[in-house]
Amino acid sequence: MSPDFYRGRSVLVTGGTGFIGSNLVGELLVRGAEVAVLARSPLPTSAEQALLFGRVRHFRGDVRDPLVVREAVAGRQVIFNLAGHSGSISSNDEPFDDLEINLRGQLELLEASRRLEEPPMLIFASSRLVYRPTDQLPVPETAPTGPLSLYGVHKLAGENYHLFYRHRYGLGAAVLRITNPYGHFQREGQNRYGIINWFIHLALSGNDLPVYGDGDQVRDYVHIDDVVRAFLAAGSDLRADGQVLNIGGGAGVAFVEMAEMAVRTAGSGRVIHRPWPEEAARVETGGFVADVSRAADVLGWRPEIPLAEGLRRVVAEYREPG
Amino acid sequence: MSPDFYRGRSVLVTGGTGFIGSNLVGELLVRGAEVAVLARSPLPTSAEQALLFGRVRHFRGDVRDPLVVREAVAGRQVIFNLAGHSGSISSNDEPFDDLEINLRGQLELLEASRRLEEPPMLIFASSRLVYRPTDQLPVPETAPTGPLSLYGVHKLAGENYHLFYRHRYGLGAAVLRITNPYGHFQREGQNRYGIINWFIHLALSGNDLPVYGDGDQVRDYVHIDDVVRAFLAAGSDLRADGQVLNIGGGAGVAFVEMAEMAVRTAGSGRVIHRPWPEEAARVETGGFVADVSRAADVLGWRPEIPLAEGLRRVVAEYREPG
Repeated sequence: MSPDFYRGRSVLVTGGTGFIGSNLVGELLVRGAEVAVLARSPLPTSAEQALLFGRVRHFRGDVRDPLVVREAVAGRQVIFNLAGHSGSISSNDEPFDDLEINLRGQLELLEASRRLEEPPMLIFASSRLVYRPTDQLPVPETAPTGPLSLYGVHKLAGENYHLFYRHRYGLGAAVLRITNPYGHFQREGQNRYGIINWFIHLALSGNDLPVYGDGDQVRDYVHIDDVVRAFLAAGSDLRADGQVLNIGGGAGVAFVEMAEMAVRTAGSGRVIHRPWPEEAARVETGGFVADVSRAADVLGWRPEIPLAEGLRRVVAEYREPG
Repeated sequence: MSPDFYRGRSVLVTGGTGFIGSNLVGELLVRGAEVAVLARSPLPTSAEQALLFGRVRHFRGDVRDPLVVREAVAGRQVIFNLAGHSGSISSNDEPFDDLEINLRGQLELLEASRRLEEPPMLIFASSRLVYRPTDQLPVPETAPTGPLSLYGVHKLAGENYHLFYRHRYGLGAAVLRITNPYGHFQREGQNRYGIINWFIHLALSGNDLPVYGDGDQVRDYVHIDDVVRAFLAAGSDLRADGQVLNIGGGAGVAFVEMAEMAVRTAGSGRVIHRPWPEEAARVETGGFVADVSRAADVLGWRPEIPLAEGLRRVVAEYREPG
């Protein structure tokens, strides 16, 4: 990727106030992009984030609203499409809301994008939850899909929307299937989208870290800085066009092992085992590790921050916030 | 399948006034089922169909309407789920309508079904249009998906809804991916859902049969009686539960060859070649033949009516209508 690619470029980040979005916005600003954000949430109030978002044009609204979507996409060259609810359990409890927000909103965004004079490049944030659970790890992009949550069903349909609009209307489109991202800016207690910060928080405050059952399910944790680099690479490289790429940490770690690493890194807290809650057991998808070799082949992207290093960074950031 | 399986059984056919639905309803009545139909269309007025539907309970309404859906599913043991719009081109022109009718309606139906005291078995009518175009024919169920129409995107998401609700709530569910069905009861001029009857109609009335380009694209035509047998088998056989099965004619036929067979069978008309219309070329998915061996393995179902025989039946039915 040319280091200057984003300088002066008009970029939209949907869902730009969320975990991945706010980190991505920061990097885009550093690289000199003209950044707009489309998000339902108000802008963050913490000092660092206010500084960051003070330089960003904010379209406050919803991807379901065609008027604000049309305004937000006008003239954009790259659209990082991170809008939506996250969470398997909430999607299953509120199926119609999930359909509206995570799927119909995508259609609004694509319908507005395909009407632009210059077709933009869209990078869609998808999820490892589109895959059918499997024992054959690591999982490549060619593995069968078969989501066990409505969130996953809608993410997969969102992927297919992007690839269809690319085929039909000549938009650029790439899909990133992200594993379990963690790191900087993730809100405390926001455990739906990243258990690690929550565990670090518990450990630093000397609390118990609850592990369901044995905790031997394998997970693929990827540091937010690696995720942001993948988005930046995909948005600036024509080779990404039409691709579906796994973005993961490159190695599997048992859940309980991650918890123990968090305790060791924090120097306090302790791991305790609890029985699986019914709803968590129902959406548990078994072990998962992404095969990230295609992203390396296509984009030259590789994860660079091993979990031990990532945990040290999270602990350091908690100790010296902002 | 036990010949008595459907006797006295409470069965719902959504989209039961359509092409596959009306044929399926007829067979269910012959087998002694208590048949209800959920459909937006009024009941058909032709003599044969009126006789047929006179014995059917009709819930006139839309799968998007939770009240009529709840009434229609109450107490059903088997639900043949054929509701929805068909047509790739219309889905791309009216994306939000297609989302509402072909996807949100499915969620209404599944939400109502999962609340029933006795979990029903649902058989979902999907399409070969969920597959990614490929040169590797015939196409098994394990081939990659990658729909090139919103119709296909929504059918695939509908499949995943059924399999998710099965996993989450213990409903029975099977998915039938149907190729190009044709035959009895298909309305004249209804060429979106079956070119063959339209071509027979043109040939019998001495008209030209238009073939785009060379017409060498391979198609998989399956006679409606074979399709109906597949639905009946899937609805009555526990081995179908959780399965995704191709239902096709078992052999590929070039489009132009089908047209010439129609002319020969009718004894009139002639094939003419025309340039591809832009929109048709855009949604053309290349050659397709389904591998139907899994349906044979799982259900013992095999297509029994070769195209030449099927065309003779269609011609005979046009000459001596119902």
